[in-house]
Amino acid sequence: MSGTAQIGVTGLAVMGRNLARNFARNGFTVALHNRTASKTRALADEFGDEGTFIAAESAEEFVAALERPRRLIIMVKAGDPTDAVIEEFAPLLEEGDVIIDGGNAHFADTRRREKDLRERGIHFVGVGISGGEEGALHGPSIMPGGSPESYASLGPLLERIAGKAKDGTPCSTHIGPDGAGHFVKMVHNGIEYADMQLIAEAYHLLRSVAGYSPAKIAETFRTWNTGRLDSYLIEITAEVLAHTDEATGKPFVDVVVDQAEQKGTGRWTVQIALDLGVPVSGIAEAVFARSLSGHAALREASASLPGPVAAPLSEAEAERFAGQVEQALYASKIVSYTQGFHQIQAGSEEYGWNVDLGAVASIWREGCIIRAAFLDRIREAYDTRADLPSLLSDKQFAEEIGAAQEDWRAVVAAAVHQGVPTPGFAASLSYYDALRAERLPAALTQGQRDFFGAHTYRRTDREGSFHTLWGGDRSEVTG
Amino acid sequence: MSGTAQIGVTGLAVMGRNLARNFARNGFTVALHNRTASKTRALADEFGDEGTFIAAESAEEFVAALERPRRLIIMVKAGDPTDAVIEEFAPLLEEGDVIIDGGNAHFADTRRREKDLRERGIHFVGVGISGGEEGALHGPSIMPGGSPESYASLGPLLERIAGKAKDGTPCSTHIGPDGAGHFVKMVHNGIEYADMQLIAEAYHLLRSVAGYSPAKIAETFRTWNTGRLDSYLIEITAEVLAHTDEATGKPFVDVVVDQAEQKGTGRWTVQIALDLGVPVSGIAEAVFARSLSGHAALREASASLPGPVAAPLSEAEAERFAGQVEQALYASKIVSYTQGFHQIQAGSEEYGWNVDLGAVASIWREGCIIRAAFLDRIREAYDTRADLPSLLSDKQFAEEIGAAQEDWRAVVAAAVHQGVPTPGFAASLSYYDALRAERLPAALTQGQRDFFGAHTYRRTDREGSFHTLWGGDRSEVTG
Repeated sequence: MSGTAQIGVTGLAVMGRNLARNFARNGFTVALHNRTASKTRALADEFGDEGTFIAAESAEEFVAALERPRRLIIMVKAGDPTDAVIEEFAPLLEEGDVIIDGGNAHFADTRRREKDLRERGIHFVGVGISGGEEGALHGPSIMPGGSPESYASLGPLLERIAGKAKDGTPCSTHIGPDGAGHFVKMVHNGIEYADMQLIAEAYHLLRSVAGYSPAKIAETFRTWNTGRLDSYLIEITAEVLAHTDEATGKPFVDVVVDQAEQKGTGRWTVQIALDLGVPVSGIAEAVFARSLSGHAALREASASLPGPVAAPLSEAEAERFAGQVEQALYASKIVSYTQGFHQIQAGSEEYGWNVDLGAVASIWREGCIIRAAFLDRIREAYDTRADLPSLLSDKQFAEEIGAAQEDWRAVVAAAVHQGVPTPGFAASLSYYDALRAERLPAALTQGQRDFFGAHTYRRTDREGSFHTLWGGDRSEVTG
Repeated sequence: MSGTAQIGVTGLAVMGRNLARNFARNGFTVALHNRTASKTRALADEFGDEGTFIAAESAEEFVAALERPRRLIIMVKAGDPTDAVIEEFAPLLEEGDVIIDGGNAHFADTRRREKDLRERGIHFVGVGISGGEEGALHGPSIMPGGSPESYASLGPLLERIAGKAKDGTPCSTHIGPDGAGHFVKMVHNGIEYADMQLIAEAYHLLRSVAGYSPAKIAETFRTWNTGRLDSYLIEITAEVLAHTDEATGKPFVDVVVDQAEQKGTGRWTVQIALDLGVPVSGIAEAVFARSLSGHAALREASASLPGPVAAPLSEAEAERFAGQVEQALYASKIVSYTQGFHQIQAGSEEYGWNVDLGAVASIWREGCIIRAAFLDRIREAYDTRADLPSLLSDKQFAEEIGAAQEDWRAVVAAAVHQGVPTPGFAASLSYYDALRAERLPAALTQGQRDFFGAHTYRRTDREGSFHTLWGGDRSEVTG
């Protein structure tokens, strides 16, 4: 027997609830299910005027409410709870049905689950959803993995509820098989960490070097937001910096404890990048900056370490410096995205996903936390040349970063001289200079490795692997 | 029946062979075993005059040759081969016997194996051994984990074959339970990566900014090696740089392909540090620098990106700059070790190992790749105050890094202006400045997180967790 609901949502915490409402508002009949059945009823009652909900009391009732092939979205905690819910429903499903995991799963878990369910005839779709609660309700950026067949069935629904780019393109696309969707969502979050860290450094420099107040910096960010940095994160930065704490009358940012927290996807991004051999230094520095900030005892013990005293700038100098910071921020941002897209490319090759990088940029244009005008340009770059070795190889980005590099250097040098930590700006610049370098000192590293571990080296002038008898007459042998 | 060999070595590739010879040279009777028995015989024949070997043809013969409690060192490839050899021997052993894994195992595997064998009444000791082939033969640095009982039985043998610090202390100590030894060896290797990267950057700067030849840089390193940088890695750097390639007559370093390779322990160090929430930016940048160097296509595609043209220095300026580079190298090295010891401290807390950080510094003073005069100072710092929050809290290190910081800044700024990548120097300086900072922009990060994800924040002026209704009237509620 087949039901009438096109989609089912189980797990009705805030993300699941908003996603269900989004489906209903878009004209789909939505079956609802939750471990605590009272929540299901309450949701259907409260938002019944937004569309058609079917509140199911039991797993069986939920499954029976779905039209076939069934599409069932799990919105529970990543990890064991997800496995538990899968095992609750899988036995009730039939061949061709689709289980969708909308949580923040590690892509390796998604690969495992997909394989397991595929062998049982069920499609499993790990889908990354970005945009927070608001996004889930009004149009998130959606990154589904899984089989092409599953997307054929599920895609039209996701594209309806997804955010829409300015040109009308829905922010959902089939990323690739098995864990591809959750992988891309993970890298999205890694880039988000880097973006936030770079903004934090720009703020810190404007505050400490230019001597700007939070209100003045908010104004500066607002101006930047009308240009090439136009993005959600710049927009909300201005909002946060402009906010005054009611209780104290101080700038809000000054009453917040300066210890940043994290939930894990930034860390995963760096760990996986290390496995793939992709340098994501900007993302790594962002993760480290958060963990460093939380080591209160260490910071307290280090407070008396000597450093320079910042020299105040004149108003004109400060204004000029702020302009340079915008260049540095933009250039560093290009590097973060270069590193992030490199990681997606490497993951795609490693796992045979065949990810379309232009399509990824396209669906990040709206709905997600890193949505930005900038992403339209990345989409263009990859649409023009799908096999771009790196974003920095795109003519326009190369020109822009080239035009920014002098100011970028001036800003990092100023930070260094004035004792303001800019790990993200500096790491990005080092990455840029290392990629440009005709020769890297890695040759010395190889020489050292051959010396102490006989690890051998290659030569620039002929093929093969060589070893120098360092402990002997220092002649060269083939290794 | 009990045999006469105090120790057995199975797996007679170069490391196992040299370790076996080291035991024999120190007066122990050594049982030998290898999958290919001919190798066993050949070794006993070739080095029979160095001591007493018992060549065993089979696993049973090998085990029978050992006195009880048996001590049996496995020197095979990390991973599945190690598990296979353990399963070959464990059934032949008796309660109280000790299996020692001398390979480069991941500490999590060591923890698993130790637990498993403990339940079967057998001690399992994961031991980190550093020093390469030469070290294994002449006196390595040895980092054994496992139970105190196992060290009581095994320690005296290890201390005999270990390297000896100048004050006579053997470079072997009981690191802590289960995986502690392999963990500390992993961090040792991470620090080794950082050390090598910092040396590479110093070389690159002397070459590109000071305009020195490799021979002149070799001389410079030789001079540095007589001071506070006195260490094995500086010593061999001078050797490598002074070496001329016979085939071409060019400096050796110029004929080596500038793509550095890696075997995985550096990567592990960073991955585990991320799990522990310890910022190890210097080590991470070293790992990334190696992987970046290997991306030939990416580098080629980036070769035309614009950058500054290095301005040549006068001889006097170059000499002054070289002095500043020494300061920058030393300061960055302090940071690498600060981060590495922080990671050991965090691992020790996480797993309840109670690692003595002073003892770790002590056994790294000889035998291992990062052996250095400097480690004696670290030992002193931790011996003086075992609960030092960080190496940077040590009075003497704080003074030294404080005295170096101006030159350090000058070097990083010069690198930035001249387009020489110094990811390690720059990351270390950022770490230093971030730890010193009275306020970090992490407060802004928390504000952003609260804005887009309702992740809440803490206030500086009262306890609790708070959320601002950003989408509403922006009043504050408890979160």
